[in-house]
Amino acid sequence: MSSKPFDIDDRLLADSHALHTWRHCQIRLNKNATIPWLLIIPETDLIEFCDLPAEHQLNITLLAQMMGQYMKDHLGVEKINFAAIGNVVQQLHIHVVGRHSADPLWPDVVWGNPLPEAGYSKAEIAQWQATLKTLAGDVA
Amino acid sequence: MSSKPFDIDDRLLADSHALHTWRHCQIRLNKNATIPWLLIIPETDLIEFCDLPAEHQLNITLLAQMMGQYMKDHLGVEKINFAAIGNVVQQLHIHVVGRHSADPLWPDVVWGNPLPEAGYSKAEIAQWQATLKTLAGDVA
Repeated sequence: MSSKPFDIDDRLLADSHALHTWRHCQIRLNKNATIPWLLIIPETDLIEFCDLPAEHQLNITLLAQMMGQYMKDHLGVEKINFAAIGNVVQQLHIHVVGRHSADPLWPDVVWGNPLPEAGYSKAEIAQWQATLKTLAGDVA
Repeated sequence: MSSKPFDIDDRLLADSHALHTWRHCQIRLNKNATIPWLLIIPETDLIEFCDLPAEHQLNITLLAQMMGQYMKDHLGVEKINFAAIGNVVQQLHIHVVGRHSADPLWPDVVWGNPLPEAGYSKAEIAQWQATLKTLAGDVA
């Protein structure tokens, strides 16, 4: 971590909306609204999730747990896909994807499989921003 | 965790070789030898990685870090894919997959994409078993 401005890869920026910044993590929302798909981008030069310091890992999984529980409680999600892949964009970014047995890709993974086109409205993005602010604020 | 025998889903059993048991985790190797692909199956009824107790999460990521470093040091792997998905087999299993920019699926993910047929010999499986025993033994 450093105090200089943290640059997010252009491809991640292009594909997602900014939601919140929390404990040196940028939280973003995949622009495709078909499946609730959040990204956690820690401000680090490390590229592997498991190489992060333990405390940083636990911050991320605690936030991901709250994201997942929110999706299950409010969006009908049945299963969370939690993954750090990085084959295309090496910058570390952790996917927290809410899946449902009736979603268009089920049971396939979201990566590399085209989703029906669907975007979020400005109001929906603002709602996600408020939700993430609340979830992150609830983490002790 | 319980002291009763722990049952692994038949589909996981069918697709992977047993390597080692460590701290209430079953460590297995995907049978396809094209890409080094390990599974960590914690002995738990929870289905979400982020719902595990913190100590259990950190045990798993520490082991995954050692697996990943081994793959990078000895198998030419460039990137680790660390993922808990569970859309097909709900029983919690964490994938630790060693990827290389010259492997047949790169940069696509391994899930849902067919790999060329390739198996491990008995000697290779025994080598993996010895490797995992060493790696797990090295975790303080």
